[in-house]
Amino acid sequence: MKILNTMPSDDGFFMPAEYSKHYGCILIWPHRRDSWQNGAYAARRAFKALIEAISKSEKVIVCARYDDYDNAREMLPPEVRVIEMNSDDSWARDVAPTFVTNGKEIRGIDWGFNAWGGLFDGLYFPWDKDNRMARKLCDMLDKDSYNMRSFILEGGSVHTDGEGTLLTTEECLLSKGRNPSMTKQEIENTLCSCLGVKKIIWLRRGIYHDETNGHIDNICAFTSPGEVVLAWTDDKNDPQYEISKECLNILENSVDAKGRKIKVHKMYLPKPVCITAEECDGLDNMDGEPTRIPDERLAASYVNFYISNGAVICPQFSDDNDKRAVELLKELFPDREVIGIQSRDILIGGGNIHCITQQIPFFDKEIK
Amino acid sequence: MKILNTMPSDDGFFMPAEYSKHYGCILIWPHRRDSWQNGAYAARRAFKALIEAISKSEKVIVCARYDDYDNAREMLPPEVRVIEMNSDDSWARDVAPTFVTNGKEIRGIDWGFNAWGGLFDGLYFPWDKDNRMARKLCDMLDKDSYNMRSFILEGGSVHTDGEGTLLTTEECLLSKGRNPSMTKQEIENTLCSCLGVKKIIWLRRGIYHDETNGHIDNICAFTSPGEVVLAWTDDKNDPQYEISKECLNILENSVDAKGRKIKVHKMYLPKPVCITAEECDGLDNMDGEPTRIPDERLAASYVNFYISNGAVICPQFSDDNDKRAVELLKELFPDREVIGIQSRDILIGGGNIHCITQQIPFFDKEIK
Repeated sequence: MKILNTMPSDDGFFMPAEYSKHYGCILIWPHRRDSWQNGAYAARRAFKALIEAISKSEKVIVCARYDDYDNAREMLPPEVRVIEMNSDDSWARDVAPTFVTNGKEIRGIDWGFNAWGGLFDGLYFPWDKDNRMARKLCDMLDKDSYNMRSFILEGGSVHTDGEGTLLTTEECLLSKGRNPSMTKQEIENTLCSCLGVKKIIWLRRGIYHDETNGHIDNICAFTSPGEVVLAWTDDKNDPQYEISKECLNILENSVDAKGRKIKVHKMYLPKPVCITAEECDGLDNMDGEPTRIPDERLAASYVNFYISNGAVICPQFSDDNDKRAVELLKELFPDREVIGIQSRDILIGGGNIHCITQQIPFFDKEIK
Repeated sequence: MKILNTMPSDDGFFMPAEYSKHYGCILIWPHRRDSWQNGAYAARRAFKALIEAISKSEKVIVCARYDDYDNAREMLPPEVRVIEMNSDDSWARDVAPTFVTNGKEIRGIDWGFNAWGGLFDGLYFPWDKDNRMARKLCDMLDKDSYNMRSFILEGGSVHTDGEGTLLTTEECLLSKGRNPSMTKQEIENTLCSCLGVKKIIWLRRGIYHDETNGHIDNICAFTSPGEVVLAWTDDKNDPQYEISKECLNILENSVDAKGRKIKVHKMYLPKPVCITAEECDGLDNMDGEPTRIPDERLAASYVNFYISNGAVICPQFSDDNDKRAVELLKELFPDREVIGIQSRDILIGGGNIHCITQQIPFFDKEIK
């Protein structure tokens, strides 16, 4: 693995859309006792269901800590590769490399990671194991790695359409816990140089009470060039209403890099999902303080789906809108199976299906 | 990775000779402070020289513990893959899988490993991290793994000619610390079923004072079908003399699986190599006891070379016979470069170049 200090777009590399063909997908086996209730066993069952769904149509690589390797190997089907790798937590979207391609080969971007805000408002300390994962994953895959550790970014805070447009939120990328010394224009320039995009559409805020400072991947996602789904509620008393409405206004008044207007599909949220006292009892304290308190609202959203080669895998919350989300995705992805996964045990950790996955784009040479 | 409970030879798989074409080679970055003096820094320089020599003609994969990854990545050239993997020590020959092939694909054998003798006369406790490595390496390479954990074997205790013959020593394979409940015949049968061999040539003992219970790979090695090098001394006062003479007698009275007589090339040993008091001072105690004592004789032998695709890499001890060993290998491997590596800092750990390498045979599909 070469560690590169050039910029991907200068080398002819860009980030393909998630709905482009994949080689496979990376996940991290959950273990952290202050993130995942009851020693992560319920979360592991949810991860397993997701991994089985993804591995039907693409290769899955699961990173497991030394102590968890045997458990992961036994729980997961043989076609899944389980790889020993140390981690602080299990959010592959945010700590695995963002892969870029020039159509012939892929390389990984090794962003700086500071647990969603570092010492300003990060979610845990330390985060050194997570911050080392992207480079090690490139090494493991025998791919070169762009050294962008001086720029803090999580994969969940950007979505691209593969045709020059990037979606993100100001709440996250302009937060004081990320790159406070950079101007918005400097951040735009960095995203353009790294991901090969030409136009950035900035939404203001993400899902209400999302502890990632409003990652884009929980509120709005491209489903094809020029089309997005947006998390939505008609309930004006829900603080989410104003947020989603503001997003809609921005999207309806934006054009993408190709000059297209954006078609917005409203994706109705479930009723507010809150953690129970019993669930909180299954979570270890962190530095003596609880990470969740009973009745705290979780950032549940159907937008946090993962697009695999053969399927779209969508969170389900035992809510009346579960089916509506699945039906919408069927309409938008007519060539893919739409699979719903009960994901409450992932949501308790603070994210959902998209947050725990990171796709590896397909390229013409077989991966190592 | 599938974990297989069949026998390789029943599936049409066999172990190719080391001089067959390789995909690459596995090593483990040294770290153990009671094996490698001064925190393993001198050993790391020797490993680096070896790795650079091997990587000229085949892929090298280096396993490093989490804490050592950054150091290994910085010291090693970019074409080397550094992989995070926990280990007790750094003897890839003995803990990495023994690979078998059917000509189209490769699989790894996951032998039981008990640190060269377990609770009977093993060299350290515990050895669980080492014992888990073979399976994890298969998983990392996306290759299936034969579960042979119930049979204790180290890769350094067997050499094959790739044409049905296996060389080993009674001192090691019949030792009480390996498989004491099995008869010699049962051990033969297991080796034949696992490695696809038909004839086993048993030498009696290995190199004098070799703490592996006389691994074959330090005393005798195939250089081509029907030809071996044998560690040799003409000094009748050296306890090695009787051992080597006994080996010679056995070899001269053996035929291989193809009915050929064995041609033996004497490979003259260096003068006895002993550890100094200063070197001992750089080694941590183990459980309160020193692992080496000053003036202890080390099992130095030129036979512990590694055959890469383009080279034969041979230990050197700053001895008058260094050059003689290199010249013999040049004669026996006319198509390969012969590279000498000063290996005293590896020898102090208890083995040499062959002990810290494990080849991955070439096969027609590219490795993952």
